[in-house]
Amino acid sequence: MRVPFDQMQAEFSRVFQKGGMPKDKAEICARVHTETSRDGVYSHGAGRVMRFFDYLQKGWVDPNAEPTLHKAFGALEVWDGNLGVGILNAFHGTDRAIELAQVHGIGLVGLRNTTHWMRGGSYGLHALDKGYALIGWTNTESCMPPWGGTEARLGNNPFVMALPNGEEPILLDMAMTQYSFGKLETMRLAGRDLPYPGGFDCDGNLTSVPAEIEESMRPLPIGFWKGSAFAFMLDILAAVFSDGLGAAGIDQVGKGSCGGCSQVLIAIDPSKLTTAEHMEELAKLAKAHIQSSAPAEGSGEIRPPGAGSIAARADAAAHGVWIDDSVWAAICAL
Amino acid sequence: MRVPFDQMQAEFSRVFQKGGMPKDKAEICARVHTETSRDGVYSHGAGRVMRFFDYLQKGWVDPNAEPTLHKAFGALEVWDGNLGVGILNAFHGTDRAIELAQVHGIGLVGLRNTTHWMRGGSYGLHALDKGYALIGWTNTESCMPPWGGTEARLGNNPFVMALPNGEEPILLDMAMTQYSFGKLETMRLAGRDLPYPGGFDCDGNLTSVPAEIEESMRPLPIGFWKGSAFAFMLDILAAVFSDGLGAAGIDQVGKGSCGGCSQVLIAIDPSKLTTAEHMEELAKLAKAHIQSSAPAEGSGEIRPPGAGSIAARADAAAHGVWIDDSVWAAICAL
Repeated sequence: MRVPFDQMQAEFSRVFQKGGMPKDKAEICARVHTETSRDGVYSHGAGRVMRFFDYLQKGWVDPNAEPTLHKAFGALEVWDGNLGVGILNAFHGTDRAIELAQVHGIGLVGLRNTTHWMRGGSYGLHALDKGYALIGWTNTESCMPPWGGTEARLGNNPFVMALPNGEEPILLDMAMTQYSFGKLETMRLAGRDLPYPGGFDCDGNLTSVPAEIEESMRPLPIGFWKGSAFAFMLDILAAVFSDGLGAAGIDQVGKGSCGGCSQVLIAIDPSKLTTAEHMEELAKLAKAHIQSSAPAEGSGEIRPPGAGSIAARADAAAHGVWIDDSVWAAICAL
Repeated sequence: MRVPFDQMQAEFSRVFQKGGMPKDKAEICARVHTETSRDGVYSHGAGRVMRFFDYLQKGWVDPNAEPTLHKAFGALEVWDGNLGVGILNAFHGTDRAIELAQVHGIGLVGLRNTTHWMRGGSYGLHALDKGYALIGWTNTESCMPPWGGTEARLGNNPFVMALPNGEEPILLDMAMTQYSFGKLETMRLAGRDLPYPGGFDCDGNLTSVPAEIEESMRPLPIGFWKGSAFAFMLDILAAVFSDGLGAAGIDQVGKGSCGGCSQVLIAIDPSKLTTAEHMEELAKLAKAHIQSSAPAEGSGEIRPPGAGSIAARADAAAHGVWIDDSVWAAICAL
């Protein structure tokens, strides 16, 4: 079904306040969850509202905690999230990185002891709204086996790169598993196979059957050994840059992505490196370049990163924000 | 065959000087090519000596050019490589990034109008030898179709992340194609299929047969659509951060990776963000964590990124640096 943006945000805000959040914080989180669904990333928008409410109920997220400065040097800062609300901590980190970049051209903030930031792309969009490029990532609890292993020892560690480009922001927001467990579930329930192999079955064969991957718990890292190595690097760099925990430590806490994860937010002022005209020209050229390729068999438009969200946003503006009927009913019943 | 390190370096240096390089510059490049082979990355070490000699002969690389400062603000600098030697330009950029990081904790250098930097990992290792973490990447000419297309419009844009860790440096150095064209050729000549699908055949089916990918020119991006999007981001961010060319512009020049590519080198001082003890502990924990997984079917040791190079280096120290007989003969005959 479709729900108007404001109505959805108000409902999410009510739920978060019921979970113990002060109204001002609940409003921000409700906006981000609604924007995330609006941009087509339902899994981390409406799809996470009940789960976040559950985190609040369990006391895994402290709705009253505020981030505190842990270390600072030049264009670097480390903040302690004090296990507060992941979205608010990540916005704070992004804002501090931008403020450091205003002075130094670049700013890096490490965020320790924080909780699930929901959609990583939110912070990329936040930075580019202010004219800054962003490189950021988070580590999280293990959900993916390392290459050569069968047991989860690496997080899917979402990685974000964002570049301002007027009304067509360029945004990469990708996790290290080829498909999320949410996607596997959706495809299984729809009775469909994945379009490309998404993991190993229990015998170690590549498979496109979602249920086989859910059974083996062996989702595929993007690029096989490459995504495994990339996930490892993101994990340890996040921990080092934030003086915080890596996946090994987070797993020990046993509270999933709320167990004190580590994040990195690097803001860069592109206007100090090139001109607005050159940036605009590069974006136009790059888009035209990929779109000048002959299309692959059965493929639609060739799109730059972020174009899917722009299209989803336009659709939501015209028709309201999509939400699964049963999810909406459950949230409204809370 | 095996050749002692010093002998190989001397031979490479002789060839580069014959190509027109001053002795001091030739010595550095010869060292890097030899170190690259020593670390097991033959394709970009000995395997690139003849090609680099060819670049010099064609005048695609100016052996006498020096990088010049193009822009500077705070912890940011852009240098113009003036189409000089890629290795030397990239070392200069890395050194400047480190010098900026000494002041600001982090430094970002964009490098425009440069040429092939050979092994990206060389600059990661250079930074961590000095105690700095490095995030860096290059763009290059198109060699991979964008997702949804069949014609090359994206570079394989190698991406590097490096973290100091005593005698066991942690190093990721990965290109965006699942396999390099060099690997496809090697496997085809050996009459072997790839262990996992590496591209599409001419009918758009995933294939593990190297010759079919060489024919279609459709190598697979890591993680399918994800690697395609990542390659796009690395390309445009390199161009923006260096006020330089993206793949569209590089392709127009028509000199491959020597057509004025753009690079980014970000050095970060981890000692300003955490303690040496915590870093060491994190590296130990992370390694032990992945190695605590049960092994996959037929797999060897589970290794952190960079461990393969460490093992190759030890082997080369004991037995000399491996080089293909015919490659060595061709180089010695120059």
